[in-house]
Amino acid sequence: MTETGGALAGPVEIVGVGLLGTSVALACAKAGLDVLLSDATASHVRTASGLGAGRPRKPGDSPQLVVVAVPPAHLGEVITRVLADSPDAFVTDVGSVKASPLAYVREHNPDDVRRYVGGHPMAGSERSGPLAATATLFEGRPWAVTPHADAAPEATALVEELAALCGALPLVLEPDDHDQAVARTSHVPHLMAALVAGRLAVAPVGHLRLSGQGVRDVTRVAGGDPGLYGQIVAGNAHAVTALLAEVRTQLDDMIEAVGNGDAAALDVLLKEGQAGTRAIPGKHGRPQTVQASVYVTVPDEPGNLARLFADAGESGVNIEDVRIDHDPGRPVGVMELIVAHDAADRMQAVLESRGWVAHR
Amino acid sequence: MTETGGALAGPVEIVGVGLLGTSVALACAKAGLDVLLSDATASHVRTASGLGAGRPRKPGDSPQLVVVAVPPAHLGEVITRVLADSPDAFVTDVGSVKASPLAYVREHNPDDVRRYVGGHPMAGSERSGPLAATATLFEGRPWAVTPHADAAPEATALVEELAALCGALPLVLEPDDHDQAVARTSHVPHLMAALVAGRLAVAPVGHLRLSGQGVRDVTRVAGGDPGLYGQIVAGNAHAVTALLAEVRTQLDDMIEAVGNGDAAALDVLLKEGQAGTRAIPGKHGRPQTVQASVYVTVPDEPGNLARLFADAGESGVNIEDVRIDHDPGRPVGVMELIVAHDAADRMQAVLESRGWVAHR
Repeated sequence: MTETGGALAGPVEIVGVGLLGTSVALACAKAGLDVLLSDATASHVRTASGLGAGRPRKPGDSPQLVVVAVPPAHLGEVITRVLADSPDAFVTDVGSVKASPLAYVREHNPDDVRRYVGGHPMAGSERSGPLAATATLFEGRPWAVTPHADAAPEATALVEELAALCGALPLVLEPDDHDQAVARTSHVPHLMAALVAGRLAVAPVGHLRLSGQGVRDVTRVAGGDPGLYGQIVAGNAHAVTALLAEVRTQLDDMIEAVGNGDAAALDVLLKEGQAGTRAIPGKHGRPQTVQASVYVTVPDEPGNLARLFADAGESGVNIEDVRIDHDPGRPVGVMELIVAHDAADRMQAVLESRGWVAHR
Repeated sequence: MTETGGALAGPVEIVGVGLLGTSVALACAKAGLDVLLSDATASHVRTASGLGAGRPRKPGDSPQLVVVAVPPAHLGEVITRVLADSPDAFVTDVGSVKASPLAYVREHNPDDVRRYVGGHPMAGSERSGPLAATATLFEGRPWAVTPHADAAPEATALVEELAALCGALPLVLEPDDHDQAVARTSHVPHLMAALVAGRLAVAPVGHLRLSGQGVRDVTRVAGGDPGLYGQIVAGNAHAVTALLAEVRTQLDDMIEAVGNGDAAALDVLLKEGQAGTRAIPGKHGRPQTVQASVYVTVPDEPGNLARLFADAGESGVNIEDVRIDHDPGRPVGVMELIVAHDAADRMQAVLESRGWVAHR
């Protein structure tokens, strides 16, 4: 048994070696744990093994922890089966919803539910399958760990340790809280983005030429895989519909306010939205600081961004965020450097002194 | 009269020397035009003059073109007055809505409406007032030019020339088309972002810790000034309410689909959203190309971004877009470099060869 500095000593079995499962496997293998790989598709296991993610599970193997990484629609069923097949193992998963798989396990295998504690790493990729996996996928990301009332404390501790081993930040909360939280911070924003983007799909010819950065930001997540997202939302239907109903009430108020020219009523809604943007935790969990943007004109050629960031680095000002504006029609981009408010003048001055066209 | 290579020879009068007006003035002054400044607040004129944006208008001055840059609620009234006060001038504006000011002018000064052609530069800043102005504010941005049936062709030509002089890309379309287009690409996305963000404002304690990049993107525009946005929406109430009603119908369908577990109906809505994200014109007006993301782990310290972009530049791959992931909890950021799909492997390999932790 490899020394890992904690209770998580392996073997760790990964059931479902797609993007997430293989990434967890790679991180565990890198940490020296014995990693067992299982998948309904045998070629996926061969691929993941070939990447150094672990070895196929053999009869007689007895995992300490099993990580279920199958599509959302199959979570409850597979977790239940794994609990029965590996009676000495603790079990977790990496699914986007937590209450419905737990309810399934409770119903079908109530005696073993104590060995299951769910998890949800906030990471992904536009790609899928084991070849897209990487040991660093979870680096710096939140990883929700969702113990329930009957959960064994050792199970919770193992899942937290797994998250930390993967470089993620474990956040412990209850399954229902998790699902309500992701309905609000992920599922409903995604669905509303899809509705806004859906109106773009039926736009008259030429109207989308006026698209700016705002609409690109609002709709970007709606470009994700509809099949996967449909499963995620279906698994969290209760929390999602409750919140969508709230949004509909607000939308009715908004339509009435705009239609009646009721500036005060519209202002209430816009101010609540502004307050919401400020309620999101700041970078790295710190309180949000007042930030300012410095806009820089950048010819769209390789090397210019490097030069810009080298020059910006000379200011000693930390860049909190960056954006490239995609306005149509000319081979010049506008780069937005977001910095602390009281450092923006310095950044602008340094860039201008090095020949950049910059403004606030 | 300064040689400017076209029909726009000045003087150009700017009425309202806030951020947009003073920025237009600075660009015109930089091009050698005689610029006249007017504002209800005399100190703004002094400030803008002090910046080199032009000189106060004097009796006897006869502008060739007047640019009205006042708050949205006052556009129609001020344009009408300017047409009467400057009987030899052509008149434009820089407001976010175009049909309602035109209707006001038609009603109150039908004989002079031919001398007015509206405009709308797609640019702004978080800051306001003349001190925030810059001659480069419009660099690379679309600038809608909206002639109407009775417009003098010279007026349209002058406004197009003004947009080009400011470094913007003139896009000619009818006022109603403009308003419908911005309802779809700007006003409704903003309002829906405000509703999503409004739900964040009332989130239970701790739930927003699960916020990822997606919800930040969806809600970012809702951080803008509610007062200004209320005026803009009020000026485009007809187009906005029509489109909000469409969104409401779709939202009803969505609530029903999720509530009933109707995966097929939800899939239709999600697929329409995905199609909408692909309908937005690509960078610089080119067709959208297939892009891929390379994620890089970056310690959050000054200088690291410069080093990253210098190393990325060595790959010879053009970076189409960049993002910094703001996940809470640790002093490490994840930088997303968006590049052409077939160049992503090369970018990843070059970065890894220089010691970066990168994945796709």
